[in-house]
Amino acid sequence: MPRIESRLAELGLTLPEPSTPVANYIPFTTSGKLVFVSGQIPRKAGAIWPVGRCGDDVALGDAREAARLCFLAILAHARTAAGGDLDRIARVLRLTGYVASAPGFREQPQVINGASDCAVEVFGDAGRHARSAVGVAELPGGAAVEVEAILELA
Amino acid sequence: MPRIESRLAELGLTLPEPSTPVANYIPFTTSGKLVFVSGQIPRKAGAIWPVGRCGDDVALGDAREAARLCFLAILAHARTAAGGDLDRIARVLRLTGYVASAPGFREQPQVINGASDCAVEVFGDAGRHARSAVGVAELPGGAAVEVEAILELA
Amino acid sequence: MPRIESRLAELGLTLPEPSTPVANYIPFTTSGKLVFVSGQIPRKAGAIWPVGRCGDDVALGDAREAARLCFLAILAHARTAAGGDLDRIARVLRLTGYVASAPGFREQPQVINGASDCAVEVFGDAGRHARSAVGVAELPGGAAVEVEAILELA
Repeated sequence: MPRIESRLAELGLTLPEPSTPVANYIPFTTSGKLVFVSGQIPRKAGAIWPVGRCGDDVALGDAREAARLCFLAILAHARTAAGGDLDRIARVLRLTGYVASAPGFREQPQVINGASDCAVEVFGDAGRHARSAVGVAELPGGAAVEVEAILELA
Repeated sequence: MPRIESRLAELGLTLPEPSTPVANYIPFTTSGKLVFVSGQIPRKAGAIWPVGRCGDDVALGDAREAARLCFLAILAHARTAAGGDLDRIARVLRLTGYVASAPGFREQPQVINGASDCAVEVFGDAGRHARSAVGVAELPGGAAVEVEAILELA
Repeated sequence: MPRIESRLAELGLTLPEPSTPVANYIPFTTSGKLVFVSGQIPRKAGAIWPVGRCGDDVALGDAREAARLCFLAILAHARTAAGGDLDRIARVLRLTGYVASAPGFREQPQVINGASDCAVEVFGDAGRHARSAVGVAELPGGAAVEVEAILELA
């Protein structure tokens, strides 16, 4: 069994079905070793979850779990980008995390840790990445979190 | 006539005069095959248009048209980056679209489709890109939309 | 004395101690010649400064100085990325500047000029970069500004 797939199994993680954008963009592009993954929105049972803003109607714990779901969605696309073999992902280069934030909510890092921690659980040191976390006004469909990524292929 | 220039003519599209930033930054940089294009603000007759926030004083249709204007401004810089020859743009790798959003406005994807659709009209499959769309609080000069890009040279 | 270090001395600039992220991300990653630097928050004497939003409780001049501090923090990490030798930084490819903005504040470019001007003071033409400046709702710890970078190694 490939290394990263076993690690996912060991962690009890299942990747979602890769989503299909409903517009003229695609889940990822590659240029040389770089993979650019589109911003991912968290979903549960197909529906955007959670909906709302942190510091308002979305609890920190839910937002953090949402960031983890975003990273799993990134991984699902990364697997496709790597021809089905996650062991060909050499490292996570950068994550940008957008958190829908009510005035006064300033814990964007704690939210995006949900994605960062998952990256390191899955990839170990190769999962340690450069990161930005910012609090935005609103996100598509009312999602509380959106995470995009740049990865490197082996 | 070069391929992409004919395509622009066919679509009735005219690229704007490449804008000159009024500060210590430049419209684009290149590194190997990568072209990083600065965030573009939509303009009509030289003035920022539309001004305001979506879900407040800017209509969805205008914002969508603004995103298209941003992409045309990106293309104008891309042409310079490619030494005047748009056929040397191998593909659009990533667009990031920022939409000035009033509370409750959650249709950022529909706005940024104005840029994404234009990319595919002009470049075909090479125009399909990774994308993020987020709703921000305010944009420079009150612009409703800002779009930045990473492109790949042939 | 190395060229950029002398230039820093000439400008009277001292780089901060490179900060250590307190989560599962790191200050920078490299891929080939590219260096991705994490979003940097401005600090004075170790504490986030200034706290608040532009157009509300943070003056434009302070926000501009904050953007300069962000760029110096980026430089501190760049030096590490370049094995301690800033002369190995070939150029600044892109800066993305996030400005915590109260409704109606539209001078994000003037704020981020604090980082852009510093880049050109230090690196000359090699400091001229592609840039995006956007106004966000909130930033980590209430910071008024956050700046991230992509640099190129020689």
